[in-house]
Amino acid sequence: MALNIVVMAAGKGTRMKSALPKVLQKLAGRSLVQHVLDRTAALAAQQRIIITGHGAEQVEAALSSSGASFVRQMPQLGTGHAIQQAVPVLNDEGSTLILSGDTPLITAETTARLVQACDGRALVLLTIDYSDPSGYGRIVREGQAVQAIVEHKDASPAQREIRECYTGVMAAPTALLKRWVMALNNQNAQQEYYLTDIVAMAVAEGVPVLGLKTERESEVLGVNSPSQLAALERLFQAEQAQQLMEAGVRLADPARFDLRGQLRCAQDVEIDVNCVFEGQVELGEGVRIGANCVIRNARIAAGARIHEFTHIDGEAAGVTVGEGALIGPFARLRPGAQLGAEVHIGNFVEVKNATLARGAKANHLAYLGDASVGERVNYGAGSITANYDGANKHRTTIGDDVHVGSNCVLVAPVTLGAGATVGGGSTITKDVAPGDLAVARGKQVALSGWQRPSKKR
Amino acid sequence: MALNIVVMAAGKGTRMKSALPKVLQKLAGRSLVQHVLDRTAALAAQQRIIITGHGAEQVEAALSSSGASFVRQMPQLGTGHAIQQAVPVLNDEGSTLILSGDTPLITAETTARLVQACDGRALVLLTIDYSDPSGYGRIVREGQAVQAIVEHKDASPAQREIRECYTGVMAAPTALLKRWVMALNNQNAQQEYYLTDIVAMAVAEGVPVLGLKTERESEVLGVNSPSQLAALERLFQAEQAQQLMEAGVRLADPARFDLRGQLRCAQDVEIDVNCVFEGQVELGEGVRIGANCVIRNARIAAGARIHEFTHIDGEAAGVTVGEGALIGPFARLRPGAQLGAEVHIGNFVEVKNATLARGAKANHLAYLGDASVGERVNYGAGSITANYDGANKHRTTIGDDVHVGSNCVLVAPVTLGAGATVGGGSTITKDVAPGDLAVARGKQVALSGWQRPSKKR
Amino acid sequence: MALNIVVMAAGKGTRMKSALPKVLQKLAGRSLVQHVLDRTAALAAQQRIIITGHGAEQVEAALSSSGASFVRQMPQLGTGHAIQQAVPVLNDEGSTLILSGDTPLITAETTARLVQACDGRALVLLTIDYSDPSGYGRIVREGQAVQAIVEHKDASPAQREIRECYTGVMAAPTALLKRWVMALNNQNAQQEYYLTDIVAMAVAEGVPVLGLKTERESEVLGVNSPSQLAALERLFQAEQAQQLMEAGVRLADPARFDLRGQLRCAQDVEIDVNCVFEGQVELGEGVRIGANCVIRNARIAAGARIHEFTHIDGEAAGVTVGEGALIGPFARLRPGAQLGAEVHIGNFVEVKNATLARGAKANHLAYLGDASVGERVNYGAGSITANYDGANKHRTTIGDDVHVGSNCVLVAPVTLGAGATVGGGSTITKDVAPGDLAVARGKQVALSGWQRPSKKR
Repeated sequence: MALNIVVMAAGKGTRMKSALPKVLQKLAGRSLVQHVLDRTAALAAQQRIIITGHGAEQVEAALSSSGASFVRQMPQLGTGHAIQQAVPVLNDEGSTLILSGDTPLITAETTARLVQACDGRALVLLTIDYSDPSGYGRIVREGQAVQAIVEHKDASPAQREIRECYTGVMAAPTALLKRWVMALNNQNAQQEYYLTDIVAMAVAEGVPVLGLKTERESEVLGVNSPSQLAALERLFQAEQAQQLMEAGVRLADPARFDLRGQLRCAQDVEIDVNCVFEGQVELGEGVRIGANCVIRNARIAAGARIHEFTHIDGEAAGVTVGEGALIGPFARLRPGAQLGAEVHIGNFVEVKNATLARGAKANHLAYLGDASVGERVNYGAGSITANYDGANKHRTTIGDDVHVGSNCVLVAPVTLGAGATVGGGSTITKDVAPGDLAVARGKQVALSGWQRPSKKR
Repeated sequence: MALNIVVMAAGKGTRMKSALPKVLQKLAGRSLVQHVLDRTAALAAQQRIIITGHGAEQVEAALSSSGASFVRQMPQLGTGHAIQQAVPVLNDEGSTLILSGDTPLITAETTARLVQACDGRALVLLTIDYSDPSGYGRIVREGQAVQAIVEHKDASPAQREIRECYTGVMAAPTALLKRWVMALNNQNAQQEYYLTDIVAMAVAEGVPVLGLKTERESEVLGVNSPSQLAALERLFQAEQAQQLMEAGVRLADPARFDLRGQLRCAQDVEIDVNCVFEGQVELGEGVRIGANCVIRNARIAAGARIHEFTHIDGEAAGVTVGEGALIGPFARLRPGAQLGAEVHIGNFVEVKNATLARGAKANHLAYLGDASVGERVNYGAGSITANYDGANKHRTTIGDDVHVGSNCVLVAPVTLGAGATVGGGSTITKDVAPGDLAVARGKQVALSGWQRPSKKR
Repeated sequence: MALNIVVMAAGKGTRMKSALPKVLQKLAGRSLVQHVLDRTAALAAQQRIIITGHGAEQVEAALSSSGASFVRQMPQLGTGHAIQQAVPVLNDEGSTLILSGDTPLITAETTARLVQACDGRALVLLTIDYSDPSGYGRIVREGQAVQAIVEHKDASPAQREIRECYTGVMAAPTALLKRWVMALNNQNAQQEYYLTDIVAMAVAEGVPVLGLKTERESEVLGVNSPSQLAALERLFQAEQAQQLMEAGVRLADPARFDLRGQLRCAQDVEIDVNCVFEGQVELGEGVRIGANCVIRNARIAAGARIHEFTHIDGEAAGVTVGEGALIGPFARLRPGAQLGAEVHIGNFVEVKNATLARGAKANHLAYLGDASVGERVNYGAGSITANYDGANKHRTTIGDDVHVGSNCVLVAPVTLGAGATVGGGSTITKDVAPGDLAVARGKQVALSGWQRPSKKR
């Protein structure tokens, strides 16, 4: 059965008070409309049509690689008018599923049920029971069959008692939908074309109108303001936290956990309070993440411990942390940091585009950038790879078992041979042969009875 | 119409278990009583009178610049006794508004309504409906007119059903108030003078007694314990978060947002989880604040990005961050840091009392204090301005396009001319001419086959 | 009256999806079963018997120093079967209290009440009223006396209306308990031996069966999943926060406070949002802890201020911070850091196994390890104690009033005499006499018109 998916994405979202079109506002790091596309990705749709309007160029640019096609609604004259714009690109077969681009948590299950119930023959409305339905369009049924959607303001006292409401999501037989929406009129107070008016047409024609009810309020919640966006963000985060906990992940506080991307966890992962994960993150068996860590695009192998206040951002290049490694607190791993097993990276240490082999250590106030570091290397406190000459980046190579003293500068390109030692405070500009001790420092001189400056007024 | 405002601030707050008088406890960085003064600042009051008692000296010192005058209540013999102390300084005109110094979230709207309703003629009680009114004084009405406040313990079963309660806030005709409070007696179990006894006097005299009801529970919540203080803090923070979101600010988690001062935001500001703002902070259009930042007294221009774990504290001197600047993670900006457009300050970098011109960068483990830094300067990893000679602070001047290598020390006062280069590991004690390369380091020497120390038992 | 305590700890906890036995899962840093033992420590028990099963070796190892004895239940054939295993080690006197190792928040008060009510004569069941009792065993009473525990699935419609449920906790006369559990059979669907079947035996024999009801749901909540573990963690943290606030501690946000151990606070301690305390921590009068601090095993004296993002971990050696000291932000204090009064430790500074006397300062990007630092010492930005020669650790001694410049390296073992000065950028390998100025740096040379490298393609 052929399926079209139409996503309404033309709204401005005035209450967002943003230069960004509403559907591009971000929930957990992805735009609202991207959530809708992702959550319906499993449906075998012939085509996905995004109806754009306000900020159409931005929306289309943002979704340019989504595989969806775009139809513009200019000006915006109502939901029915929106679908009218899509009519030329809809064929006459199968079903069309209509979703809102600002309702990001619609579930795959529900959309699949809608499409199945529609089956190219019935008009299917997604409905929900609200404890307080004020303001929503009520679903009027006779027996099981839906007779009408009655707007709150038009509802009789008896109809106002109805708690079942329309959610803005429907599936319709495509050919009928096309005919119906082209027959809509705008003879109403707002002078808009209402998509919901097709219900009456379907009833009049004897086409079955079904109300498919969801129990899950989150999937029909739309975003109209920063406050609603924040509420939905927390709801979404709580759902993700719950899923991870069901898979065995131990979260110290599910209300202080943020995941904006994918987090894959092996057994016995523990995540302390107030951590943020972004992009693609993998945590191996028994990994423990301390409080207040931020981790993006990284793979952390079994048994590694990421101490508090660690910032890992692999961006495109990624970061890998080996088995049993100890990282932080106050460590920062940047793109291309590839740390082997048992590596230790301590406080106030930055690692970028550098490979550290098994057992290498940089525990204190150091910078390792554009470097290859051998096994068991001890990289001293305060030492720096001077990888940038003001124009180009160069590489530092440090062999196995090298000991670099404190506050050294390794001026790249430079190589320290295996087993070499660099004396503390040295600036190394030439290669050091394996096993050598290299020192580059001034001679210590003393001035007796030196008079220190005195405080000026 | 003349208006006096009297704030009750004599209580000890035993349950706070603090050496600080209760009204000086802080909510969102300001004392409770200061909130009361600030929130009624718009009322055109003739005088503001603070009734002090416990810790009177501390309270009066803390409020010495508030423009309020002080009356001491020693000892504390009840609310009526408190107002008796103010009688000598109250004239006979207009209205007097009586507020509690430990009830910080009273709204300007409500106090204005109270004063208007009083109008020098009526006794007006601020009331509220509680779902569980146990323990509160009930408002007994006949028709609209208030007949009495009946204490819970004195209430009949029928009166106990009343949900409308007295809040401790009232406005009264000043002349009547003075007469009434001087007529109070303390013939009761506690031997205290109860201000609420004036209701009966007003009723007896035929003075209209009005009950003005608020729907907003927060504005009548008092603080008697750390637990109540924390609850009110969260309520206040939630209100502030809501206001910011209504203005368009996007908060990742309104429950993890703290503002202790004023935050002014342009359009499209995003604030990630767990940030704290204090003092006066301005965020320009499109500014994004990463998770876990602490920002005090700073102006951050449009398009700047403040990465996670950034600490900015401008204290009195302030901090400014230019357009499109990138700050953090793990950066610290201290008073007098003035960063131009496109400046980059990276991890483990501290900037204090220093001006950085457009495009200057200090990305790694560095200290810039008492410095003027030109455009496009690259300030190397680990480099330090040695601004303190043990007695006095001196200034470092770095011209445009200077390149300072890694782990350098610039011993102030010192000037690096435009376009100069300083080799890594150099300690610079003399000025460097424009365009020169300055190097100050030891010669690198090698000892072959050096025997490293072995582990002692 | 002799008392035995039996703790059921044989369960696997399949839904935890963990390699760790369920009772070893951690709540606030201690295992669930350890909480049960700690909370009943005040009961004068003759013996404590832990019934182990799944992961018995791990559980027994974890509790090896608890003073409890262990009985293994292999395989696990129900709660009655568990107690059967304990029969050989139970004598015939007094009472036996039966607790669940996965129900950590049982209160001392309740267990004491159970034991008292039992008094070696009655079977006492701990019960609770649930608003939704579905799934729980109902307590059927005749008058006050308990007649039966009826499982939900076996309950009549009338019995299903009963809200009082069994909690899994009981106290029984030991001799009777032993006889009863040995008489249990497993003729039921699960073919398990149910401990609750002893209720019918007691009733049949005329032994009084009492239901002792608790109002406190937290104390009967068990842990079967990471989600329940997280919920209980938050509940426990909220209780601890409440207790601290009742003692006068001011918490900026009780929902963002974690204590995994003991926190002792003097008067007027303030703790900002999102702090974590572990192990044994003491905070003196007026101590203020900034947002986002992590503090383990430390004593912080009166008036000290711990600024934001400070990480203190004393491990076994402990950390002490003196009166009025200022620490952080972004400071890290490690085991053996002993800071005197008025010491200042600033941003990106690490201190380990080092004593700093009154008024010593290390304010910027520095490392002090294995050092003794005198009074009023100023330890410059970027300076490092090179305490490790690649094989052994050595000590640095810095006398009173020493001024160490910026980016120095002090190669231990080394001593700087009182009043000595070390020039910035110096690597000090030899002792410096008191009052001397020591400098060890290269001579500054300049190359005019130096051509900087150009960007390579």
